[in-house]
Amino acid sequence: MNLGVLGATGVVGEEVLAILAARSFSIDELRVFASERSVGRKISTPVGEVACILPTAAAFAGLDLIIVDVEDDLAREWIPVAEAAGAVVIDNSAAFRMEPGVPLVVAEVNPKDVGARKRNIVSCPNCTTMVLITALAPLHRIIPITRMVVSTYQAVSGAGRAGIAELARQWEAGVGREVGLGQAGKHPELIISGQVWDRPIAGNVIPRAGSLASDGTTSEEAKLLHESRKILHAPELRVAATCVRVPVYVGHSMSVNVEFSGPLSAAAAVSALSSAPGVLVSDNGTGAPTALEGAGIDPVLVGRVRDDLSQANTLNLWVTGDNLRKGAALNAVQLAEIVVAE
Amino acid sequence: MNLGVLGATGVVGEEVLAILAARSFSIDELRVFASERSVGRKISTPVGEVACILPTAAAFAGLDLIIVDVEDDLAREWIPVAEAAGAVVIDNSAAFRMEPGVPLVVAEVNPKDVGARKRNIVSCPNCTTMVLITALAPLHRIIPITRMVVSTYQAVSGAGRAGIAELARQWEAGVGREVGLGQAGKHPELIISGQVWDRPIAGNVIPRAGSLASDGTTSEEAKLLHESRKILHAPELRVAATCVRVPVYVGHSMSVNVEFSGPLSAAAAVSALSSAPGVLVSDNGTGAPTALEGAGIDPVLVGRVRDDLSQANTLNLWVTGDNLRKGAALNAVQLAEIVVAE
Repeated sequence: MNLGVLGATGVVGEEVLAILAARSFSIDELRVFASERSVGRKISTPVGEVACILPTAAAFAGLDLIIVDVEDDLAREWIPVAEAAGAVVIDNSAAFRMEPGVPLVVAEVNPKDVGARKRNIVSCPNCTTMVLITALAPLHRIIPITRMVVSTYQAVSGAGRAGIAELARQWEAGVGREVGLGQAGKHPELIISGQVWDRPIAGNVIPRAGSLASDGTTSEEAKLLHESRKILHAPELRVAATCVRVPVYVGHSMSVNVEFSGPLSAAAAVSALSSAPGVLVSDNGTGAPTALEGAGIDPVLVGRVRDDLSQANTLNLWVTGDNLRKGAALNAVQLAEIVVAE
Repeated sequence: MNLGVLGATGVVGEEVLAILAARSFSIDELRVFASERSVGRKISTPVGEVACILPTAAAFAGLDLIIVDVEDDLAREWIPVAEAAGAVVIDNSAAFRMEPGVPLVVAEVNPKDVGARKRNIVSCPNCTTMVLITALAPLHRIIPITRMVVSTYQAVSGAGRAGIAELARQWEAGVGREVGLGQAGKHPELIISGQVWDRPIAGNVIPRAGSLASDGTTSEEAKLLHESRKILHAPELRVAATCVRVPVYVGHSMSVNVEFSGPLSAAAAVSALSSAPGVLVSDNGTGAPTALEGAGIDPVLVGRVRDDLSQANTLNLWVTGDNLRKGAALNAVQLAEIVVAE
């Protein structure tokens, strides 16, 4: 197995390399690709230190599999080159997710879709969708979900190293702390613009994760709708999403109100989730798992599972998961394992 | 007007005194009541420095109005004494909110209820309910709301000085920062218990604000349901709430999906909210007001007003407001003004 990792120096790329090692993924040759800035830099990999190289058609030659975690525009540029070079591509970007013929796969949910690909690309969902659908698919299999109302609490690492650095810098400077002690709204000059977000993220919540479309929906919210439909093969599924950034380093959480096409009690849901792969139910469904508790581990945590007394056939629940691991790197490696097993 | 403030040294009591001064509330005599710990301590008030005294029946004598912000058990103990002493009580605690004959009032929403009291108590709603209903009542008046799905992002000051101190201490120590950088879930010993919350609040979100009842609902979630019904005189209103604590000092925010009994477009909602008292609509409804921007100012901020494409007669919106001001102290002073105007 000759493996490439494109975007190897990013936060997700780093996790991919760590998870490949932890899962003893069989590698004959490993090439790590990065931008010009990092070329020549040696990084720690499962096969020892390897120097980063630039992606080129020639550099892809002979690779069986390439795991990609770069910005969408770079993915659009390099993935067709990788495909032409004969590799199967596992893509964490949004570039090809909605393309017919490219499966969009959560390893625990729809692994068989990997084999139905028409191109040599398998896409991983957006990190928020991934965490959510890992938790909800086991319920959808019992009674189909018809509608979800989702409010997210998304970590800054969803915006990569720049997001992490921005929270760290503001945390250190006490930004949200100083201005947050009750008077910030009176002093607009204190509401500083960062590099990643136009409002402080430390000591604050920003109710707009992703870019805003003309219909008032953010790109993250649109992904939650369209990707969930594709993964679950549920084109009629309805989703009302509000995606919010919170001052957490790692761990995307979400409060979810789920409507089913028939009755499903909280007790039955907890029972189904307790045996579901990739899911850990907290304290028999009554627990309240925090973002920190899900950071650094594989499973998605579920708690606060309650019958919604305001509406029939509806449950409330809370989901949190590591956006860099199950939300991205872990799923990519799991998909690579599925491809290898072919 | 002889005025008393019970709980004068708390975060809300302090805001009450500041707001009384800012609004030039007419005061002949002011008595400030606090616990034994603070007796004799001089605090800054609209009529100069005043020493804290203990609440007693004798100490209440001659007061026309008492604003109360203490824990529920102390409110239950002292408010009947204050009533017996002839004062009208404006109560920020939960002690009497649901009692028939005690009006539960948001100054901009149901001010006339003040005059319909059967006891000499007027209650202020819980801070989360207050912020939410200030924003939603103007819409409910156009088309009645039938159901709301609410997920909150509540500031630590909702838990008073102790909550503020806990976040400050953990922020300083880098708690959520150190353990949050990706590995906390692997190291349960890092998930420390604080004095207020049993999980770190810095760099984290805790999906359980309030105490947990046997039906899996928290006290904050129950308040959102029952208080909203009472304020709006809408006993059939249905609410699915999830109350979450976030590392923000001041400012309760919420993501709300609102179902109406008939069509109400986002544009019509923005138009109604733009002229509503106590509400400020951000960027024609498309803005994304953060918690910090609402801290220290009177109005509740509303943004992200969107038609919910997943369901008819439904809107998504975001609300944020200062939990200490409009959420508590400001409303109490507004109610005091209404009582004075009688």
